[in-house]
Amino acid sequence: MIPESLLIGKIRRFLPEDAGLKKGIGDDAAVLPLDKKHYLLLAVDTIVDGVDFRMAEAKPEHVGRKALAINLSDIAAMGGQPCYALVALGIPTGLSYFWIRRFYTGIKKLAKEFNTAVVGGDLSRSKEFFASVTVAGEVEKNKVVLRDGAKAGDSILVTGSLGGSLAGKHLTFTPRVREAACLVKYFKISAMMDVSDGLMRDLDVLMKESGKGACVFTDSIPVSRACTLKKALCDGEDFELLFTASPAEAKKILARKEGLLGTPVQRIGMVTAKPGIYFKEKETDTKVFKLSWKGYEHF
Amino acid sequence: MIPESLLIGKIRRFLPEDAGLKKGIGDDAAVLPLDKKHYLLLAVDTIVDGVDFRMAEAKPEHVGRKALAINLSDIAAMGGQPCYALVALGIPTGLSYFWIRRFYTGIKKLAKEFNTAVVGGDLSRSKEFFASVTVAGEVEKNKVVLRDGAKAGDSILVTGSLGGSLAGKHLTFTPRVREAACLVKYFKISAMMDVSDGLMRDLDVLMKESGKGACVFTDSIPVSRACTLKKALCDGEDFELLFTASPAEAKKILARKEGLLGTPVQRIGMVTAKPGIYFKEKETDTKVFKLSWKGYEHF
Repeated sequence: MIPESLLIGKIRRFLPEDAGLKKGIGDDAAVLPLDKKHYLLLAVDTIVDGVDFRMAEAKPEHVGRKALAINLSDIAAMGGQPCYALVALGIPTGLSYFWIRRFYTGIKKLAKEFNTAVVGGDLSRSKEFFASVTVAGEVEKNKVVLRDGAKAGDSILVTGSLGGSLAGKHLTFTPRVREAACLVKYFKISAMMDVSDGLMRDLDVLMKESGKGACVFTDSIPVSRACTLKKALCDGEDFELLFTASPAEAKKILARKEGLLGTPVQRIGMVTAKPGIYFKEKETDTKVFKLSWKGYEHF
Repeated sequence: MIPESLLIGKIRRFLPEDAGLKKGIGDDAAVLPLDKKHYLLLAVDTIVDGVDFRMAEAKPEHVGRKALAINLSDIAAMGGQPCYALVALGIPTGLSYFWIRRFYTGIKKLAKEFNTAVVGGDLSRSKEFFASVTVAGEVEKNKVVLRDGAKAGDSILVTGSLGGSLAGKHLTFTPRVREAACLVKYFKISAMMDVSDGLMRDLDVLMKESGKGACVFTDSIPVSRACTLKKALCDGEDFELLFTASPAEAKKILARKEGLLGTPVQRIGMVTAKPGIYFKEKETDTKVFKLSWKGYEHF
């Protein structure tokens, strides 16, 4: 079976690029012309029972919440604001209306919190439950942040802490929409994405899109409570913001005592001209090493 | 198990309406503010193996084509032009890259024909194959056609012929985007939708949204070759345009010898103030009857 990253690469090369797009396949969301001052953002993400959650264990409200939240996280990763959501469901025979209603309760609550209107959807019969949510958002043209803008010497930063997803956070996390809005409003961010497949894998993607590499300081990784460094680097579904900024901008961001609206920000490494992800135990070390740990391959 | 139409009604009442929308849940596509002259249209539709097609029998190119075409049909039903597509796939273990590539070939070809750029998507692991496609389109504000505008006395019209879907047409049909564009450009259409669940069911939906009823002339139904009236009325997935217009406008449309860009148009009945769908064998008959045949419940 072909891994997801390879398959996306193949599909991306197979489909023609539209010259009118700012960004198509290969970022958290597609960036499309909207008006003089704004881009339209479109993102879709699917969760499947048994892969992204377990119906037998998860609260329906949490499943609904997650189905929307992962998409709000994608819009946030572009520096944008979500506006509208479409919800397409695959519903197995025998699933009760009560379950579906609780699922929508989870969606409704999170949608309200982030000013997102659920404007449509689709219901299909299927063997296993799945939810494919599309979110449309917008971003000011001079504030959009892509994955390909990291420059050698930039600082690498991350919000919150990493590695807590398997302890249930992946069902209840708060998408970093407000934090991202604060970042692009007050600072110049060179590249950004959300951490969905683990820091190791996602940092590799971010650097490859930018044609750069990275040196990560392991003592600076914000490891979640009761979690190991390996989990913090490799477990998926943190949904924190991973971004780069010039050292001067990074300094300004880190100087904010309150972090980003209360969410801590940590500088975890530096962008390098040389490709590949390398590690130091701390920044001042001269010894550089590689780690063979892999991120989460959810496919 | 709750039927789809009831479930959509429940979900629609459960989710809050956004005052800024022209139209949310309950039409072929959501109609959202875009710019001074245009609305943004968003539609999503999913096909599932074993429900909407059979992987063992269908060509992958046809499956890809259908996944996009049903959404282009939704945009057409609003009088709009499709612009962008997102493709979310559920991929079972063991499905070959060769199959997926052929699936995308079907999407790519149809997307090109209708000037639609595939700008993103999502791949998930799943037990059964599904494709959930979202299309964003646009429509001039004074040309958008909703489901709720039919007036008593309006003529009811339909493009093409009905009932051929099970003979394979549902995999290869051409969405009526160009015909709809021609309709809204030259004529005043009061209500429109695409026929996806069978004329009986969809006409009922269209009339209910408009708070009206209909009288259908059975001798005027454009029945597909080698097909019965019952199939033409009840089989789903015709993807023809079902629309209403004042008698004067309908006359002008029917006077076009070439139909709509070569596609025939047929007047099949009249909108009535009285709710319910009634039938006459021919328009001049006085005898009115009801039919208990039901459309396709794909859920």
